[in-house]
Amino acid sequence: MRILLIGASGTLGSAVAAELGQRHEVISAGRQSGDVRMDLTDVASIRQGLAQAGELDAVISTAGRVTFAPLADFAAAPFGESKHTLGITDKLMGQVNLALAARDHLRDGGSITLTTGILAEQPIAQGSSASLVNGAVEAFVRAAAIELPRGLRINVVSPNVLVEAMGDYAPYFRGFEPVTAARSALAYSRSVEGLQTGQVYKVF
Amino acid sequence: MRILLIGASGTLGSAVAAELGQRHEVISAGRQSGDVRMDLTDVASIRQGLAQAGELDAVISTAGRVTFAPLADFAAAPFGESKHTLGITDKLMGQVNLALAARDHLRDGGSITLTTGILAEQPIAQGSSASLVNGAVEAFVRAAAIELPRGLRINVVSPNVLVEAMGDYAPYFRGFEPVTAARSALAYSRSVEGLQTGQVYKVF
Repeated sequence: MRILLIGASGTLGSAVAAELGQRHEVISAGRQSGDVRMDLTDVASIRQGLAQAGELDAVISTAGRVTFAPLADFAAAPFGESKHTLGITDKLMGQVNLALAARDHLRDGGSITLTTGILAEQPIAQGSSASLVNGAVEAFVRAAAIELPRGLRINVVSPNVLVEAMGDYAPYFRGFEPVTAARSALAYSRSVEGLQTGQVYKVF
Repeated sequence: MRILLIGASGTLGSAVAAELGQRHEVISAGRQSGDVRMDLTDVASIRQGLAQAGELDAVISTAGRVTFAPLADFAAAPFGESKHTLGITDKLMGQVNLALAARDHLRDGGSITLTTGILAEQPIAQGSSASLVNGAVEAFVRAAAIELPRGLRINVVSPNVLVEAMGDYAPYFRGFEPVTAARSALAYSRSVEGLQTGQVYKVF
C-alpha cells in the first residue's frame, strides 16, 4: 500500500511509520519536515500535499493541536477570539478537511485514519477544549463512514496519554495508565490493514 | 427556581417550559421572541440576555442550528466557507459560549443544560455535521463539569427525533423510534432539579 502519514515526525507518528513501514510505502508529511509539507489549518496546503503524494491507499493523521488551559480562562468569545479556536481549526477541522479532501486521492477501498485521545471520554483539568475537539472528530468519523463512496473507510484512534509524553504531561494525567506509542501504532495498523469503518479504536 | 430557557418557542423548548413552568419561574429567550432576546451566535447578545434575566438558578438551551447535507456536498474549506460553519458557530460554540457566560449569572449550585441529539451516537445520511457538533458538545460538557466553580453543574440532553418533528424529518429517520417533546422534557427536569453533573441524558 501507499500510505500518507501526516504528523510523521511526532512521537506517535514515528511509531506508526515504524509499524506500517515494515510492510508498506509510507510517505511522511508534516508542517516543518517530511517527504511532503502539509499544514492542516491551510486547505490549500492539504490539497497540495495530497496531490504531491499521488494515488494513495491510506491517509493517516497523527497531527492536531489544541489549547490546554483552565476552564476559568475560557471566556465566551466570538470565533477567532476564543481559546477553542486553535483546537477547532487545527485538530478538529484540520483533520475533517483532510478526510474530505482525501476522498479525491484514495483508491477504491482506501482508508482514512484520524487521531483523538482519551479526553473524549475521560476529562482532566485544563482539558475541556481537547475533549470538545476529540468528541467532535469521533462523532464525525462515525457519521462520515456511512456516506463515503467507493468502499472508502474512515476510523479514528483514541490513545491514552503516551509513555513517551509523560515527561511533560504526567502532572495532568495522574492515575492514568500511559501506553507506549508502539502499542498505539497497532491501532493504526488495524484501521489501515483491516476492513472496518466508522470505528473508534481505543488504546486505553 | 429562576430558569432561563433559550429556544423556548421551539417544539422542544415549549415542552420544557410546560414541564418546568409548573414548579418554577421560566424566563423565555429566543432570537425572535421571548421575555429576553438572545442569538447564540452573537456573544454580546448572550451576555446582554443573561444580564437582562438577572440572577438565575438554571440556564437551559434547546436551541442550535446545524446544516444537513450529503457528505458529498461537504468540501474541504477554510473556516467560514465550510458547510460545518453554521453548526460550529451556532449549536456548538453558541451553546459553549452560553455555558461559559452563564457562570457569572448562576447562583451557587446552579445548573446549565444543553441539547445535542441521537446523531452524536447513531449517524444518518446527511447528518455528518450534526453528529460532529453533538459529539463536541457532549465531550465538552463531560469536561467542563469537573472544572466548574461554586457547585455549578452542567449536563446535556440528547433526544431521539421528536414525534412532533416527524412531518419534516421522517424520511431521514426511517426506523428510528421517535419520542415526544413532553417525554424529552423530563430529562431537562432531571438535569435542573436533580444534583448530577457531567451527564448525557439520552432520551432514546
